[in-house]
Amino acid sequence: MTPEESIALIKANLTEVLNPEIIDDVILNQKRDLKVYWGTATTGRPHCGYFVSMVKIAELLHAGCHIKILLADLHAYLDNMKAPIELIEQRVKYYEFIVKSLLKAVGVDITKLEFIKGSSYQKSENYTMDRFKLEGMTRISVAQKAGAEVVKQTSDPYLGGLTYPLMQALDEEYLDVDAQLGGLDQRKIFTFALENLPKIGYKVRAHLMHGMVPGLGEAQKMSSSEPDSKIDLLDSADVVAKKLKKAVCVPKKIEGNGVVAFVEHVIFRVTSLKTGGKPHFTVERRDEEPLIYDDIEKLKADYEADILTPQLLKAALTKALNELLDPIRSEYEASEEWKKIAELAYPPEEKQQKVKKQKDKGDPAKRAAALAAKAEQLKLKESGAEESK
Amino acid sequence: MTPEESIALIKANLTEVLNPEIIDDVILNQKRDLKVYWGTATTGRPHCGYFVSMVKIAELLHAGCHIKILLADLHAYLDNMKAPIELIEQRVKYYEFIVKSLLKAVGVDITKLEFIKGSSYQKSENYTMDRFKLEGMTRISVAQKAGAEVVKQTSDPYLGGLTYPLMQALDEEYLDVDAQLGGLDQRKIFTFALENLPKIGYKVRAHLMHGMVPGLGEAQKMSSSEPDSKIDLLDSADVVAKKLKKAVCVPKKIEGNGVVAFVEHVIFRVTSLKTGGKPHFTVERRDEEPLIYDDIEKLKADYEADILTPQLLKAALTKALNELLDPIRSEYEASEEWKKIAELAYPPEEKQQKVKKQKDKGDPAKRAAALAAKAEQLKLKESGAEESK
Repeated sequence: MTPEESIALIKANLTEVLNPEIIDDVILNQKRDLKVYWGTATTGRPHCGYFVSMVKIAELLHAGCHIKILLADLHAYLDNMKAPIELIEQRVKYYEFIVKSLLKAVGVDITKLEFIKGSSYQKSENYTMDRFKLEGMTRISVAQKAGAEVVKQTSDPYLGGLTYPLMQALDEEYLDVDAQLGGLDQRKIFTFALENLPKIGYKVRAHLMHGMVPGLGEAQKMSSSEPDSKIDLLDSADVVAKKLKKAVCVPKKIEGNGVVAFVEHVIFRVTSLKTGGKPHFTVERRDEEPLIYDDIEKLKADYEADILTPQLLKAALTKALNELLDPIRSEYEASEEWKKIAELAYPPEEKQQKVKKQKDKGDPAKRAAALAAKAEQLKLKESGAEESK
Repeated sequence: MTPEESIALIKANLTEVLNPEIIDDVILNQKRDLKVYWGTATTGRPHCGYFVSMVKIAELLHAGCHIKILLADLHAYLDNMKAPIELIEQRVKYYEFIVKSLLKAVGVDITKLEFIKGSSYQKSENYTMDRFKLEGMTRISVAQKAGAEVVKQTSDPYLGGLTYPLMQALDEEYLDVDAQLGGLDQRKIFTFALENLPKIGYKVRAHLMHGMVPGLGEAQKMSSSEPDSKIDLLDSADVVAKKLKKAVCVPKKIEGNGVVAFVEHVIFRVTSLKTGGKPHFTVERRDEEPLIYDDIEKLKADYEADILTPQLLKAALTKALNELLDPIRSEYEASEEWKKIAELAYPPEEKQQKVKKQKDKGDPAKRAAALAAKAEQLKLKESGAEESK
């Protein structure tokens, strides 16, 4: 891949890039790998929503970037006082297993992938002093606005939610990166970082933002008290089929359609990465020739014309998604260590615990989940709902 | 002093004591020195308002307590981003000099007096982790309410002001004390500590609160843009006389009278400490016998009857205060080190700086000063006002 192709792939499939000249400078002038950070708070089990960020990370790895994944255990802790610290430690390990497996499933080389635990540096004296500096110069209203689309919004929020964007900004410096990747919902935190890092003597970074993809059902339903609405990355093929069957998928409607969006932003891009630029998606039909797509616009046109019905689309996505999940499930089944960690990280009692927000910058169903979490908290005792993102 | 006398002196001259049984237990059952913490943010030059806390600290030392004075440099830093950290470091030294000198001037043995710099432990990993815990479980509204009478209140405050009460609570644990001393304005922070320390596994402390004594003029005038309204502990005898002359002191009125209050809460108690319980205050009169008081009620009655006029009272206080300040001034003049530190800590440019709030738990003019500071900020550029508390 030429440097220009690398830059093009880095900037591809994004809704917005802030300070793109930093990317160009690193690759064209400094002639080194671009270092990019993506963070996730290690709370609930990662589900299929993670694919949206993961596909972008796969593209960045493919483009030769050095990716640093922040496993933000302190953010998780700040957010979830009810979970003992030991549980979060196990979740950090679980997240590393599943993110690695997920990226391998996407078919990308992960030698330039690095995992860093937040607590490994976020309790240090230097970081703490910088946090003091930012706390001294940041108005409450500014911190609240910065976190408005990421941190759970309540009428009487916790102090931890204000610290959150400050830390996410500082992390750019302490992870020593050139750019941060996140969903478009991270925009206000990203601009907070741009405005405030220079005030304490640090340089600004580029910011890569992918779009927000509607969820596979839960975003439409906005209720995670319905356990079926979330597809876990380790759900069995049958469970995936069952859950997709229930997914909201309005006929002929593209806008807000999570199933179509998933095909576009995950399946098409994964196949494109795997084949060197040739996406494909096959829809089997009974007693008819299959519909074969290598162009998302054609697929959308067929969907709007009801040639590609929700039933056909769901069945095809079930097949494609299960193919994607198969290697993850196999790796899990083959790893005694991972299975043991999963048990420790998510003990059965978890089902009774409160649903908590998450420092997840790539969750297409984030907003919906936040609302759902709120709803679930209200009926916590009557439901046996699974922890949701 | 018997243990019972010690306990009585510890609890004397206070407006309120929370959990007094802790004090009794330490002295009567554990039979050891009571450890008490008092904190001050090292910002502006300590002025005569400090005497109110210092007299209580002197009583505690006299009663055999071990006193830990927190020189809260990080609080000062959080609060005063405009002052470079080097300046605050010098101010920490200046505060230690003046507090020691002040207590010696009061005539008390300071061998059980200890100074601790906030940054010596407030950046540690354990402290930071505890701060994360408190931030995760404390609602913004609760933190704001806790600091409402101590932290500067504005319509759009800084995040640092929310961290402030959390740290002050944690300090009780990290300074390893049995009790904390402060003005009545600290009450909400003290109850925050009582409620929250047990939630993170720490024990509650006793809380000693002295009353809020009106200022020597500035509290009445509510303007620190008038440099004369504050008596610096190192002001010359002439300057003290000049400033007291200008002090507000309404004839026949005791309530809210800072001059009468200063005589009661500083002069009477200091002389009482020095003489083993026999306060005295002499008012010289021209062509008449002096008025000699050993009972504050008699003094107040005479003042209300206008036998003791404001002019007589001010002249007598000027004499008594200058006697108190003399040893401090002498010590300063004799110490090349202290003089050098004063120069470094408060360079001339300071006069042009913003007035900042202060973690001062014993400032009788605190509320007034906060209002004054606000007023001064508004006319910052037109005034050559000194930094005020």
